[in-house]
Amino acid sequence: MKNSGKKRVKWAQEHMPVLAEIRRQLKKDQPFQDLVISMALHVEPKTAVLALTLKDGGAEVYLTSCNPLSTQDDTVAYLKKSLPVYAKKGETEKELFAGYEAVLDKGPNIVIDDGSDMIALLHKPNRKDQISDILGASEETTTGIQRLRALEKQGKLLFPVMATNNAVMKHFFDNRYGTGQSTIDGILTGTNLTIAGKTAVVCGYGWCGRGIATRMRGMGANVIVTEVNPVKAIEALHDGFRVMPTTEAARQADFIITSTGNKGVIDAEALKNAKGGCILANSGHFNVEIDIHALEKMSEKTEREVRELVDAYYLKDGRIIYLLGEGRLVNLAVGQGHPAEIMDMSFSLQALAALYLAEHKGEMKNEVYEIPYALDSMVAKLKLKAMGVEIDELTEEQRKYIESWEL
Amino acid sequence: MKNSGKKRVKWAQEHMPVLAEIRRQLKKDQPFQDLVISMALHVEPKTAVLALTLKDGGAEVYLTSCNPLSTQDDTVAYLKKSLPVYAKKGETEKELFAGYEAVLDKGPNIVIDDGSDMIALLHKPNRKDQISDILGASEETTTGIQRLRALEKQGKLLFPVMATNNAVMKHFFDNRYGTGQSTIDGILTGTNLTIAGKTAVVCGYGWCGRGIATRMRGMGANVIVTEVNPVKAIEALHDGFRVMPTTEAARQADFIITSTGNKGVIDAEALKNAKGGCILANSGHFNVEIDIHALEKMSEKTEREVRELVDAYYLKDGRIIYLLGEGRLVNLAVGQGHPAEIMDMSFSLQALAALYLAEHKGEMKNEVYEIPYALDSMVAKLKLKAMGVEIDELTEEQRKYIESWEL
Amino acid sequence: MKNSGKKRVKWAQEHMPVLAEIRRQLKKDQPFQDLVISMALHVEPKTAVLALTLKDGGAEVYLTSCNPLSTQDDTVAYLKKSLPVYAKKGETEKELFAGYEAVLDKGPNIVIDDGSDMIALLHKPNRKDQISDILGASEETTTGIQRLRALEKQGKLLFPVMATNNAVMKHFFDNRYGTGQSTIDGILTGTNLTIAGKTAVVCGYGWCGRGIATRMRGMGANVIVTEVNPVKAIEALHDGFRVMPTTEAARQADFIITSTGNKGVIDAEALKNAKGGCILANSGHFNVEIDIHALEKMSEKTEREVRELVDAYYLKDGRIIYLLGEGRLVNLAVGQGHPAEIMDMSFSLQALAALYLAEHKGEMKNEVYEIPYALDSMVAKLKLKAMGVEIDELTEEQRKYIESWEL
Amino acid sequence: MKNSGKKRVKWAQEHMPVLAEIRRQLKKDQPFQDLVISMALHVEPKTAVLALTLKDGGAEVYLTSCNPLSTQDDTVAYLKKSLPVYAKKGETEKELFAGYEAVLDKGPNIVIDDGSDMIALLHKPNRKDQISDILGASEETTTGIQRLRALEKQGKLLFPVMATNNAVMKHFFDNRYGTGQSTIDGILTGTNLTIAGKTAVVCGYGWCGRGIATRMRGMGANVIVTEVNPVKAIEALHDGFRVMPTTEAARQADFIITSTGNKGVIDAEALKNAKGGCILANSGHFNVEIDIHALEKMSEKTEREVRELVDAYYLKDGRIIYLLGEGRLVNLAVGQGHPAEIMDMSFSLQALAALYLAEHKGEMKNEVYEIPYALDSMVAKLKLKAMGVEIDELTEEQRKYIESWEL
Repeated sequence: MKNSGKKRVKWAQEHMPVLAEIRRQLKKDQPFQDLVISMALHVEPKTAVLALTLKDGGAEVYLTSCNPLSTQDDTVAYLKKSLPVYAKKGETEKELFAGYEAVLDKGPNIVIDDGSDMIALLHKPNRKDQISDILGASEETTTGIQRLRALEKQGKLLFPVMATNNAVMKHFFDNRYGTGQSTIDGILTGTNLTIAGKTAVVCGYGWCGRGIATRMRGMGANVIVTEVNPVKAIEALHDGFRVMPTTEAARQADFIITSTGNKGVIDAEALKNAKGGCILANSGHFNVEIDIHALEKMSEKTEREVRELVDAYYLKDGRIIYLLGEGRLVNLAVGQGHPAEIMDMSFSLQALAALYLAEHKGEMKNEVYEIPYALDSMVAKLKLKAMGVEIDELTEEQRKYIESWEL
Repeated sequence: MKNSGKKRVKWAQEHMPVLAEIRRQLKKDQPFQDLVISMALHVEPKTAVLALTLKDGGAEVYLTSCNPLSTQDDTVAYLKKSLPVYAKKGETEKELFAGYEAVLDKGPNIVIDDGSDMIALLHKPNRKDQISDILGASEETTTGIQRLRALEKQGKLLFPVMATNNAVMKHFFDNRYGTGQSTIDGILTGTNLTIAGKTAVVCGYGWCGRGIATRMRGMGANVIVTEVNPVKAIEALHDGFRVMPTTEAARQADFIITSTGNKGVIDAEALKNAKGGCILANSGHFNVEIDIHALEKMSEKTEREVRELVDAYYLKDGRIIYLLGEGRLVNLAVGQGHPAEIMDMSFSLQALAALYLAEHKGEMKNEVYEIPYALDSMVAKLKLKAMGVEIDELTEEQRKYIESWEL
Repeated sequence: MKNSGKKRVKWAQEHMPVLAEIRRQLKKDQPFQDLVISMALHVEPKTAVLALTLKDGGAEVYLTSCNPLSTQDDTVAYLKKSLPVYAKKGETEKELFAGYEAVLDKGPNIVIDDGSDMIALLHKPNRKDQISDILGASEETTTGIQRLRALEKQGKLLFPVMATNNAVMKHFFDNRYGTGQSTIDGILTGTNLTIAGKTAVVCGYGWCGRGIATRMRGMGANVIVTEVNPVKAIEALHDGFRVMPTTEAARQADFIITSTGNKGVIDAEALKNAKGGCILANSGHFNVEIDIHALEKMSEKTEREVRELVDAYYLKDGRIIYLLGEGRLVNLAVGQGHPAEIMDMSFSLQALAALYLAEHKGEMKNEVYEIPYALDSMVAKLKLKAMGVEIDELTEEQRKYIESWEL
Repeated sequence: MKNSGKKRVKWAQEHMPVLAEIRRQLKKDQPFQDLVISMALHVEPKTAVLALTLKDGGAEVYLTSCNPLSTQDDTVAYLKKSLPVYAKKGETEKELFAGYEAVLDKGPNIVIDDGSDMIALLHKPNRKDQISDILGASEETTTGIQRLRALEKQGKLLFPVMATNNAVMKHFFDNRYGTGQSTIDGILTGTNLTIAGKTAVVCGYGWCGRGIATRMRGMGANVIVTEVNPVKAIEALHDGFRVMPTTEAARQADFIITSTGNKGVIDAEALKNAKGGCILANSGHFNVEIDIHALEKMSEKTEREVRELVDAYYLKDGRIIYLLGEGRLVNLAVGQGHPAEIMDMSFSLQALAALYLAEHKGEMKNEVYEIPYALDSMVAKLKLKAMGVEIDELTEEQRKYIESWEL
């Protein structure tokens, strides 16, 4: 299709009404004037809308990818007309990191990160001189926040970071319903196989995991959840899922989808047990959840792309195991990523987090900041309005009632 | 059935393995020796098991009801053989409060409350002298915690309170799956009407409300959620429910179930709109969510018990509206209350909260305390073991991975 | 509650609008004048409304029970004011059959049966003389139809029978949503145990079985289906259930619910495997699906009613197995039976089937007759109207379109 | 991707084990030797496997498309190495019909049709001479069967036709779970919009419609069903969906998906009411369900492909309405069609239907034949085996029990 990049960005934009409202305001107020914003995100249409929004707010914006497989090349082509973009689908790890370095070399005042690779790079000695220019960063993922908390705990965090992932209007929706839907999209696009009547193992019952488990069940799968946290395990049970150790679950799995934020979740032992024909996919941030090295070692032959973005591993014992998107997040590497209306909320919060950093220049400590609930509330109200949904309001009497304790 | 009280308590006890484990330990350690524990809870079999557990731990236990309709009289009869109980099904408000006063007159060292009525009574001037004897209290409900936070905010809280409701192993399960199931129990028992094919309005999408909405849908209803909180409203939408103002929703409702913790949720305007034949039920703590006074004023005739615990209001305009359990919590007033295995977790935490108060004598401030996560974790592990479910454990390598931030 | 029989029948009646409409017409037309109708059905409020409807249509009605445990005694007390009833809750098999004989002794012209016991009795030599008086019978259950087809196949059927069970407006709804909901009712009332987080095994994926499986899942259970029919097994898989042999499934079962229409489904081998604490319930017509005899033989002790209608079997190997309602249909023996609005459709068809027999006197063969679709359609339209639901109508152009084949 | 056609066909083949089993047998037996089979089906990988199967059975196979948009061009390229194929994605109606004529010109002995266009063409006077060569046809769709029944009713059917669509192992699965999943695939691929939190209207609650409604709900949509049949309407209600006239439903619709087999389901009036931004999609056989002509007339501007296979209609009143895949079946025109394992069953039945025609040469009448249940049963058993699922078998005693009627 001609102009597909432009068309897809326009389509996304039309389905992101909250961000559009914020964009109008930013355009008017120009809060990012004289500021450089360096972003590492999945370079696809919704991200393009965010980048253009920040630019409209006065920023000098540089965008690079945060994943070798999630880039949509037509988006890059279109976006390059407006701002520098460093990304191509299928780039190497080396090219990925070259992109990080390139946007960091621009001397950003604000950094928007997805997985905290860029933030980690900024903590290397060679970047020491540019720290003073940094108002702060904003992080998009659970994985990234986990790393930042470790950094903060060690007392080494060098600038303030907004935990945008933790905003309720972000992780309640993006991580759960966004990842849930886009993982289905990735699996359907990648395999054209039946989900109904199959057994799906979902590793991790965090926000992403429960979204995936819910949608896999919604598509007719019988879902097994694996967890390390006993509370989440009991929740999964009460939500009607089976729970068992991953190595046990693997025996029954037609699909295994990881979403834990940890490494080696599907390890050699799980792979040893895996059912022949099993499809492996990862929806966690990094491609370390499935131990691909172990898989390769068990294989006598590997066939790249037996179908687009599906690799076949022919194990020595005769089983075939399929891996989607090289173990990179299946929803973006194989599917089209989160739906536009979900990213409308996430990226509205990203824009507001950047605005918060700009407006609180000099007032913030080198800590991980939670997004103020007022921003969540604002996004929620704009979203409801955009959806045309009305809700109740507390009467004065009700407000008093819930604030009183007397008999 | 002969000995039904004894049999029902025994049945509950056999299905509460975590509490049984804790009971064995308490019996051995006698941590409550010389302590008086006054409890106001729904007097039914699971509560009986908790009361007997605390007694086995050395306490002098006094039990009264926290609701005029939730008492199971055969439980009272049986439990009276072991400890003083003040409760009967269908008691008046006056009798209810006389029960509170009676157990408070015993000079409790620990108070276990459900809704915080007793805690509020203890803050009256006439109880001032006995405050110094109180190690602390523990509160079972969201409503109670809300009142306590108000009290704490005003700086008037006179002793420490454990927010047992807020423990994850309590409210994730008791409020959601417990209330969800027992509300269905109450409605089926009360009405013998079809849920499938009907429209159910659930007011409030807190932990209880989402449990009810999920189970009503599980029984085939088409569910509308009403909310005052925009974030919860958007969650309900993404969970597949409709969301609209209560007064609109009432027009379509075959069932309206309130679970907000607030008053006047079903007010005159909602009642004016309500569909003829609509069934009203409340699963919130107090019987103020449905404005019964307004309902009475609109009626030209009221018929008590057209079926057990179902009252009919014949409105002047010809519609009939049915009210279950006099607007008191339908799951306990009409149904049998939460299932035993759910209360196993909640009451294990109540026992551990009481133990915490006993063990931290003199160390605590007059504040609302969250339950330490270690207690949740302990309960969760015991529960998994009782359910015969195994889960994964982090390897040393994985533990390091999630605690590191470096590239 | 005073007058509970009367009140419950009135409540049912008010929630059976289609039957009310038919009743008005029958009262006017008196099509059953001079006819004796003998009925064996579950004697509870909805059945009372049917019996009174037929009486209003001019019939001399005699009612007996079709199950020793499904009778609601207050319904009997109330109904006896209008017509002879032979039933009491907890009657013996002998009393049950005495009831059949009693209503057959009245020389019925029309027989309404549930399970075909009465029809089978009529085929005994001693009843030969009264066959000529019989216009026909109508049968309510899948089990009964199965027996009648066997009788017809052997060429021994002595009078016409309406297969009321097979009417779409009956079995699509009564068997599926009716049995589904009332089985939940029976289990909740009988046990007060958690369904969520448990494994439930549903034996049989016919109309009843799929209703039960759906509702058990709706209440949060993880459901395993067992089947003998490969097509239904594959359907169950695609509906997201697990499928395996019953003896395997029993190992994991917290609940086992039979609904196959066959005997010995839960046999000694399944019982040998059953998890300790497992709850057995039957929703099939006869109490033969669970091999109670085998259960008794494996037990060293049996305790009747450890809770109302729950018997405990203490097996020699230490496990306890619980049986609800003595293995009789749990939805009626322990629960309150199908909801009123569902029975509205089923019993409207029963009334219309009886009317059909009366109107086609002398025209029918000794065969099993399917209910004419026109009756289904009439009931469906009345039901939609009663529910206040409007649907589309084909335009003339659309009607032509679907009746044409040309390009 | 290089060799994508070959790879996709191979992938499909590996996931169609039942058809593989049948293919082995056909290859050995050569039942189609000297027979010409002309097929009009959606030309994509699963169809390729069927065509190659029939060829392996000895047939001379000609394949053409049955829809202008459902063709996958890489499949065509690959398949042409083995047999003549007449199809390209985006072909005109004229080219489509030229394809029909081309394969009919080959003088088929067996015709495999999808929608009955080819069968209708064979009933034109110009084809009269070749009728005597035709052993029979087999039809894949509900729509096609509807047309054939009309033809049969008029007494004009010129050769036997196997109603393959009606086989239980076909329509229970293909129509329901196949259409359900592939419609989701089409919508996700076409729009990358959120399904959760949206209102979806599904027109028609036949096998396809209920599959779509179930999966849309499984993805988080709130679903409204529209119907002309009161029984199906009441089923939809009891399955938890809302039911209302299409024109009403359109007001609330974010998605409208038609699957009725009729024309003008979304007509001018429904379009007048449709919510701005509404996405229209059709999963019915022909592109007549949505009145595109009416849509064009209401528009002041039409924009082709605002995204791949999404057209935007800018209405004169300011609303935008989006149409997926030009109103052709969205699951094949935009998505990848039914999953391989589902088509495994459908196309196994197609192969067996063709075999049946070959084996019953000269014995059949010019009628529409239902597929013998033995074939269904055989496919079901092979499928269970392929899925590795075991089920119960009736004991001799149980078999006798269900065949007896005596007391």
